[in-house]
Amino acid sequence: MAFTNTRNVRIEWGDCDPAGIIFYPRYFEIFDASTAALFERALGITKHAMFKTLPFTGFPLARTRAKFIKPTRFGDDVTVDTTVIFKRSSFDIEHKLSLKGAVCVECSETRVWVVRDASGALKSQPVPEDVLAKFR
Amino acid sequence: MAFTNTRNVRIEWGDCDPAGIIFYPRYFEIFDASTAALFERALGITKHAMFKTLPFTGFPLARTRAKFIKPTRFGDDVTVDTTVIFKRSSFDIEHKLSLKGAVCVECSETRVWVVRDASGALKSQPVPEDVLAKFR
Amino acid sequence: MAFTNTRNVRIEWGDCDPAGIIFYPRYFEIFDASTAALFERALGITKHAMFKTLPFTGFPLARTRAKFIKPTRFGDDVTVDTTVIFKRSSFDIEHKLSLKGAVCVECSETRVWVVRDASGALKSQPVPEDVLAKFR
Amino acid sequence: MAFTNTRNVRIEWGDCDPAGIIFYPRYFEIFDASTAALFERALGITKHAMFKTLPFTGFPLARTRAKFIKPTRFGDDVTVDTTVIFKRSSFDIEHKLSLKGAVCVECSETRVWVVRDASGALKSQPVPEDVLAKFR
Repeated sequence: MAFTNTRNVRIEWGDCDPAGIIFYPRYFEIFDASTAALFERALGITKHAMFKTLPFTGFPLARTRAKFIKPTRFGDDVTVDTTVIFKRSSFDIEHKLSLKGAVCVECSETRVWVVRDASGALKSQPVPEDVLAKFR
Repeated sequence: MAFTNTRNVRIEWGDCDPAGIIFYPRYFEIFDASTAALFERALGITKHAMFKTLPFTGFPLARTRAKFIKPTRFGDDVTVDTTVIFKRSSFDIEHKLSLKGAVCVECSETRVWVVRDASGALKSQPVPEDVLAKFR
Repeated sequence: MAFTNTRNVRIEWGDCDPAGIIFYPRYFEIFDASTAALFERALGITKHAMFKTLPFTGFPLARTRAKFIKPTRFGDDVTVDTTVIFKRSSFDIEHKLSLKGAVCVECSETRVWVVRDASGALKSQPVPEDVLAKFR
Repeated sequence: MAFTNTRNVRIEWGDCDPAGIIFYPRYFEIFDASTAALFERALGITKHAMFKTLPFTGFPLARTRAKFIKPTRFGDDVTVDTTVIFKRSSFDIEHKLSLKGAVCVECSETRVWVVRDASGALKSQPVPEDVLAKFR
């Protein structure tokens, strides 16, 4: 089961470093927001509302890897295609960030769906079936 | 002579702090991008293109002040109204950031138009007349 | 009653913009951490511990203003002198950021001491007397 | 040939998200500064000075991957051990971020040593021998 969301992002002056290109940690800020946008697109509610209406205490990142192919600069309007593939209590995300059709960055993430148990501790849990259903 | 631009900004999870509200330095990132957007709107070119086509080496900030009236949270879609008033070689910017019509932050900036002189040093200079003309 | 703390901060590559100088919102990150450091210095506990051991839900910023006198660059080791003056349920902070003895930025903040009332809402409250005592 | 540098970093309030733990893109800011610190340690000059004194236009990131093992929180004083292994015109970096002896994040980077050629374009180049010598 794969589901994709696409969003457009403007690279800003303040995202860039003295080399005039984006400072790469800013890509991870973009990707984190892109993962949230994908859930918002599928579920029809913001991450803020997810905390209020779902058994959900976050989807922390377990791993990420990224390949930087071409730099981007302030004033660039880039496109981020974000795809999710669900596993049992985790899911894999792929982000492809492009400028004018050319892929600039590829990133993959593994995230875990967590809830708070009776003792207050975080533990991973299967993604709820009604959440999965929205991605079909 | 006043000129206003309006843009919409989504407050993201990563902009917020452990209190669940935006970490205030993120507002200044938003305001800096809002100042750039205002120039882009008036001139029809990005800040990146301004460096290439104008006698322009930036408009560094001399002063800013901000008043934080109501907090914003991740998932909030805020509106930023940005107004400029030109003086001789500097200009004043006012940003008003609102959520659902209620003003959350007011910020004012004084920026200086700088160019690089023959020795390579930065110096302030009157904003070029053809730039001013685009704001009328 | 005034109390001052001094800390050293390295300006990093990623703090700087395509002009090669610090992107000014990073100063506010530095100043926010400097305010926390001042409390940590006076109270002998981190802000994290303040949440656990004091009637304290934060000291959100009500206003700030800053004057940018000289730019700083990556590799610069700057000094931040932070002074607090307490009022009733708010306090004023002054930050002076210097490089080799020359002041580069002056910033003032007004912050409010807040607690959570019985209904869960945040409200301002006088800074506790035993907190004030630590600053004397 | 391996060379390691260790530095201490305080996790700040503003580095953390509404879950109260560090927002993971901040780790990459820490790691980028840790790579710069490793070169500064070996060469005895800042990255800023490297631009002035070496045939060097940067060491952009080609790839990174990170594994997030345990979260960190504001007030945590973490240790970052950074190791480099040089290849021909690229080098691999390993960062290990620990809290009280427990590894929290492992990150590996591949970076390329670049210079500007006669036409002004960036191209990769073998790391200069006198730079390599400083790491021995």
